[in-house]
Amino acid sequence: MVAGSADSAAGPGPVVGVLGGGQLARMLCEAASPMGVRLRVLAAPGDEGAAEVAPELVVGDPTDAAAIRSFSAGVDVLTIDHENVDHSVLAALEADGVAVRPGVRTLGFSDKAHQRRAFTQAGIPVPRFAVVDPGANASRAVADAARFTESVHGGVVAKASRGGYDGRAVWMLAPEEVVPFVARYSGAPLVLEERVELDCELAVLVARNPSGEVRTWPVVETVQVDGMCDEVVYPAPVTETMARRAREVAAVVAEITGAVGVLAVELFVTGEAGVLVNEIAPRVHNSGHLTIEGSSTSQFAQHLRAILDWPLGPTEMLAPTVVMANVVGRGDTDPRRRQRPALAEVPEAHLHLYGKTPRDARKIGHVTVLGEDREAVRSSAARAAGLLSGAVEHPPPVR
Amino acid sequence: MVAGSADSAAGPGPVVGVLGGGQLARMLCEAASPMGVRLRVLAAPGDEGAAEVAPELVVGDPTDAAAIRSFSAGVDVLTIDHENVDHSVLAALEADGVAVRPGVRTLGFSDKAHQRRAFTQAGIPVPRFAVVDPGANASRAVADAARFTESVHGGVVAKASRGGYDGRAVWMLAPEEVVPFVARYSGAPLVLEERVELDCELAVLVARNPSGEVRTWPVVETVQVDGMCDEVVYPAPVTETMARRAREVAAVVAEITGAVGVLAVELFVTGEAGVLVNEIAPRVHNSGHLTIEGSSTSQFAQHLRAILDWPLGPTEMLAPTVVMANVVGRGDTDPRRRQRPALAEVPEAHLHLYGKTPRDARKIGHVTVLGEDREAVRSSAARAAGLLSGAVEHPPPVR
Repeated sequence: MVAGSADSAAGPGPVVGVLGGGQLARMLCEAASPMGVRLRVLAAPGDEGAAEVAPELVVGDPTDAAAIRSFSAGVDVLTIDHENVDHSVLAALEADGVAVRPGVRTLGFSDKAHQRRAFTQAGIPVPRFAVVDPGANASRAVADAARFTESVHGGVVAKASRGGYDGRAVWMLAPEEVVPFVARYSGAPLVLEERVELDCELAVLVARNPSGEVRTWPVVETVQVDGMCDEVVYPAPVTETMARRAREVAAVVAEITGAVGVLAVELFVTGEAGVLVNEIAPRVHNSGHLTIEGSSTSQFAQHLRAILDWPLGPTEMLAPTVVMANVVGRGDTDPRRRQRPALAEVPEAHLHLYGKTPRDARKIGHVTVLGEDREAVRSSAARAAGLLSGAVEHPPPVR
Repeated sequence: MVAGSADSAAGPGPVVGVLGGGQLARMLCEAASPMGVRLRVLAAPGDEGAAEVAPELVVGDPTDAAAIRSFSAGVDVLTIDHENVDHSVLAALEADGVAVRPGVRTLGFSDKAHQRRAFTQAGIPVPRFAVVDPGANASRAVADAARFTESVHGGVVAKASRGGYDGRAVWMLAPEEVVPFVARYSGAPLVLEERVELDCELAVLVARNPSGEVRTWPVVETVQVDGMCDEVVYPAPVTETMARRAREVAAVVAEITGAVGVLAVELFVTGEAGVLVNEIAPRVHNSGHLTIEGSSTSQFAQHLRAILDWPLGPTEMLAPTVVMANVVGRGDTDPRRRQRPALAEVPEAHLHLYGKTPRDARKIGHVTVLGEDREAVRSSAARAAGLLSGAVEHPPPVR
């Protein structure tokens, strides 16, 4: 038994506090209820998602130090719905003995410059990269950028080391654009990466608890549209060797970063270099939503188990094919009025609607379908998601 | 599309009202959240279970006519957590156009005298029975009881036609005890039934929606201890023919009773007569809890789909064996402090804790385990349930 574990708290069950009230907090609520875990959410006034269903909702500013400190006083463990939390506030809480999971050390790996250097040192495969800092020394940054661009013989991806996600603060550059871009750029240091020729993109979810237990889920393929995850497919179209390698890499990432809870590792598959780590997210993740019905342990239940230092659950998948498709907003069409047509065509679809007001390109839900045939299941999941979002219409009833 | 369906209501998603705030309401909450259904619960002040997690909780008297009427004003569909609701109140609401599901006609089948007569007329197999009414005519009741007892050549089960569940208001009588019992009895009419020699007990869950779609789940075995369900096992140890027959019977029961939503049919298996309907419950049921993780559609999601007249989901099981074991209170040992030892021994267990204060013999949770080998899975589920309730202790850690 681990010191400071939730077992020692007052009240009938452990209390987990979540900073932020989006859909990840909502799905944590859904997972917490059966397990006898009390979930308390600190949500911003405008937050939707968890606010609608959280049994213990605190409305406040989840980025404000005082609000976080007061919120954390009543919880056994503190976790996050998104990474946009001031690390210095969390560091102060950690220093005071609050169980912040993931911890500040893990969250520090969201700095891409730090992450790329640490991963390289640990032997974790990443695309070839250089860190340049025009803010510190503009001419040196330009010279370094020119040298790096020459060495990679192709396009370059520039990423701000801090502040970007879901395709934001990421720039795809042709070779001749790199130097002018760096010369013009101001902001956090830049990571320049070779633009790799992708066979596909993968994700591996991994869970780790403070006792050191580590579990990875089977590898999934992530299909991106406009820089945003659109579809997640199990099994990933890679060899067993490559799938094993991807899971090994994810487990090492969890160890290196000292992750506690679920962490997502997004990978590139290239014919030349095999798997390369693209991004990590030290939390439950869109690429793991299909584990809710598709795996013996859902990422949300596993995250709670991990941060409470309970033993982790098995992660095998429950069907030959499992596909998740995001429901993406389309005008003001509300999927909460469109379950019937979606289920009429795809009765086996598992619906997940996040309680968010629809807006163009906003993730407002997802659908998961289990089945046998990969293309049939993909098509059903896409159809159900399209019917919910309003992108496709249900044919008129035939009776 | 059905007139008066939830699609026509104001607000972002349909609102389902539940009378009663026990564990069934709680698990309905857990199923409603992902589907974009708003669940509102009318719970008694002392109700635990749903109260802890229901996002929209109305505290009141779920047996009081005025409270039910005011509660029902804001919902699209009204459903129940238990059958102890005054049918005349629900009948008045139905007359006013409120969608009460199950409806009053279905709830009327909880009267065992009515049910046995209607089932017999419809060709649904039930144990041999007689209805006697000592309150109306004591000497005739005694004579009828004597004649019935003679005809069955064995023990008799006497059941009050109204007011009993979970073994309450049920008396097991030796032949010579029947007449004295009836002579002494006062209360609702009695159903006397032959005491059948059981091979085992089964349950079939069936869902029906107002459009007339009917789905049954695969047959499960229910194992009773002290008249209370202790364990539910899929697959049931019966032939395919008998399993098919049991599902057919359940579908006919759903039709005959005009059920809307989920209905549980509990059956006896006898070598002589095959399957006989023992009890029905026009609601989600303990024997269906294993569908949450064990089936492609859980009974709770299906119940919401059915009462909203959405298309029903497929019901096949996801593993060769699925076992549910109830967590039954043992003194004041609280399972919400015992998840860690339970998961340490049975990491694949799905925990369901109802948020109820433990008391001896009170159902306070359940555990579901999926797997291959029937006896191994049964043993794991029982072990996890025992660790949670405190009936068994976790061995000291070996490290």
